[in-house]
Formats: sequence, C-alpha cells, structure tokens
Amino acid sequence: MSQIIISDQSIAISEIFGPTIQGEGALVGVPTVFVRTGGCDFRCSWCDTLYAVEPRFKADWAPMSAAAVMAEVQRLSGGQPLLVTLSGGNPALQPLSELITRGQDQGYTFAIETQGSKAQPWFALLDHLTLSPKPPSAKMSFNAARFADCLEAAGPHTQVSLKLVIADEADYQWAREFAADYPGLPLTLQPCNPAPAMPEQPELETDLADLNARLRWLVDKVTADRWFNARVLPQLHVLIWNNERGV
Amino acid sequence: MSQIIISDQSIAISEIFGPTIQGEGALVGVPTVFVRTGGCDFRCSWCDTLYAVEPRFKADWAPMSAAAVMAEVQRLSGGQPLLVTLSGGNPALQPLSELITRGQDQGYTFAIETQGSKAQPWFALLDHLTLSPKPPSAKMSFNAARFADCLEAAGPHTQVSLKLVIADEADYQWAREFAADYPGLPLTLQPCNPAPAMPEQPELETDLADLNARLRWLVDKVTADRWFNARVLPQLHVLIWNNERGV
Repeated sequence: MSQIIISDQSIAISEIFGPTIQGEGALVGVPTVFVRTGGCDFRCSWCDTLYAVEPRFKADWAPMSAAAVMAEVQRLSGGQPLLVTLSGGNPALQPLSELITRGQDQGYTFAIETQGSKAQPWFALLDHLTLSPKPPSAKMSFNAARFADCLEAAGPHTQVSLKLVIADEADYQWAREFAADYPGLPLTLQPCNPAPAMPEQPELETDLADLNARLRWLVDKVTADRWFNARVLPQLHVLIWNNERGV
Repeated sequence: MSQIIISDQSIAISEIFGPTIQGEGALVGVPTVFVRTGGCDFRCSWCDTLYAVEPRFKADWAPMSAAAVMAEVQRLSGGQPLLVTLSGGNPALQPLSELITRGQDQGYTFAIETQGSKAQPWFALLDHLTLSPKPPSAKMSFNAARFADCLEAAGPHTQVSLKLVIADEADYQWAREFAADYPGLPLTLQPCNPAPAMPEQPELETDLADLNARLRWLVDKVTADRWFNARVLPQLHVLIWNNERGV
C-alpha cells in the first residue's frame, strides 16, 4: 500500500467514461476507463477534443475531488481493477497524485497521455507515460527543456513511450528527426484525423476512405524508409465508432 | 552468435512478402516481413489463407532452403533487421530452426503464429510465440496435450501470447473458459472475418460495416463481463487493405 497524499485541490473533469478499449498507441485494444480532464496549455490546429480544451467550455468541467473521480471509475468498472487512462486537454495541468495513489491501492493501473509541455512529480507514480509532442502541422511550439523534464519525471517502473501524430510530409520528416533523438523509447506513429468532430458538429461523419489512405501512405513511408522500430497504428475508436463521444 | 543448425530439409513456402505492418495480435502495427509456409494439419471453416492450406495448391508452394528464404527476407528489408513473422498454413509443420538461427545471427527477430497442434524444439529459439487454438466455429478438434507441449517448448526468452478468434456467442463462452486456464498469458481476442477472400474470389470485398459491428459486439461483451485482461483488436490489414494478398 502506498501512502495516499490527500490534496484539497480539485480536478477539472470534462468526462469520465468506459469501460471501452484504448483506441491508440502502445496500449491499443486494452480495456480502460477514460478520465478526461478539462483545460489545456495548447490549442492544436486539428484538436479532436476542443470541448476539453477551449476556455469557452470551462463551465462544462466539473471540479471533482480525487475520491469522487475514483468513486466514478469504480462504479463504471464494477469495482474491478483495470487500466485508467488520464487524458485531456492536458491532464498534466491537474493535481493527480492522490487519484493515482488511491486507484493503485485498489489495484487499478494508470496511463497518461500528454504533449510533454509540463512535468509533474507524480509522473513517477504512473504505470504508463505516453508523451505526444506535437508536429509542425499542429502549429504549436516545442519546448525541449520541458519535454526533457517530463522524461526525467518518469519513475523506475513507468513505461514511457512516444506517440507522434503525422498529418503530412513535413510532420513525417520532423518525426524522423525527433524520434532519432530517443532511440530507446517505444514509438507509435499515428496518421492525423484531419476532420475531427467539432463541438458545433458532433455528428460529423469521418471520411474512412481518407483515413485509410492516410494510414496506407504512412505504412508505405515507414517501410520504404526501413523505419522498422516505428509502430504504425490508426485511431481504432475513430474507425469503429466514427467521431462519437463517450466510447 | 548462435550456432546455425544446417538442415538439408527444405521449407514449403507459399509466399514471402513485406515489409508491411503486422495487422493483428500483440504485435499489431509493428513493421514485419511475412514468411508464409504451405501446408496445414487443420482446415478451419473460416480459413482466410486456403491457398496456403489446401493440398490442391501444393504445386504453388516452393521448396526453399533456409538460406534462400533468408536471402529473400534480406532483399525485401534492404538488409536491415526487422521482425519476421512465420505464418501459414501451420508453420510449425516445417523445419525452421536454421532459418531462425540464421536470421537472428543477423539481428532479425522471429514471431510465429500457430494453432498449437504441434510443438517443435525450435519454438525455444523464437522471440514471440502466438498460440491461436481454434474456437468451436472453426469445426476443428482441440488436443490439450499437444497444446501443453507447445507451451512447454517455448524458451526462457520467448514471449508467449494467446490469440483467440471469436465468431459467435459459443466461441465467446469457449474463449472465456479457455483463457481462464492460462491467466499468465497475454490475451488478444479478435472478431472473426466471416467472409474472407477465397482463392476463387480473391477480389471479394470485405463488408466493413459487418466487421465493425462484430468488433463493437466483442468490445461490449468484454466490457460488460469486465474481462479486463483481454485485449480486443481487429485485423487491421483487413480494415486497411480489404482482403488483398501480399500486404
């Protein structure tokens, strides 16, 4: 049993849903409950969760205690431990150490998905840390020192991996160079969904033919360049559930 | 450098192709070259590679030496080591120890996919052993002793995993019971493609809506039953490339 650090800070929660399967990255296919926090320090051009990012949705984000979040995760999972995926927005902006220690004490494991713009001491508690620095097409700037801090913050038992989203040729070239600096990190490349659902148009159908073409293009690039330590995966949930929320 | 066991036995080869990505199981998304052997001791009702199974295609299977197979793998991969996936048919019917040791000496890694009906001493050399015993819908019988032999044959460094194909409710219930006997093995559940391309109809289009419905059904079953150590994955190559061969 680890010591639970009681915090009086609340967590800004956009949504908690599941169990479903993780649709992307190294843990693709693994049953999980998603805890999506509200608020982000980025605003990527192709963001697919603007309802958890833009300040105009702030009223939709419930301030919840770690105990309340964990109670909801337990309710959804019938009290049976599983993987909890912390996503956002940028979940690294939130005070999550108490949530993680509470959950782990009950057998739950924790993965986070963050862009690597802010490190937290509680990264050391995580089972999985997925860092997803943004490519040029996102139109965000990259802070190498902060990214290094995130890597540094991982604990000895934290499985760290990289997930790079690729929208175009420039992103691909950037990813080649970026990943070369981290040869020891498991790497997933993911074609960008250029037409994610918008809060104003949640029913927007994805163009599956276009997504498949993007995936094929990426597989062709990776195999032609013999980039054999890069794993190529689509966003499975987009293929299966279209752009639907809460699955 | 391991010692290469020179064999004068040839390997029956149906096709060697790639690099592409592995489309299913624990290594989904990983770049790989496929070495598909010809010949099988099973004839599953929904087999998707009859051209590597039925004796009437035997004339299409080239007898190749391990050196010749490895030369082709090297040509396809530009001499750069990657994952080699041994599939079939049932590749466990073939003499593959020399191929594996030759390839590993050059930095290649080896995964096999087999139903677990025949163990080979060279399973101990493998990096990954995926055992895929067939569910009731395949209309094949299961030999528990032979399956146990396969598990026993894995080496200390062989990563063993289970992949169970699910076509219907009976398969699902079978999988629940089967997997319960092997709690330590990583498990992937895969919805069955009920309409694979046939040799007579290689251009048959897959019904993507039906495959998606099957995947959703399986995710719903697994999450409703809180089967949280089961990973649920589709056959990515079928979603991406339809039923096309050689990708």
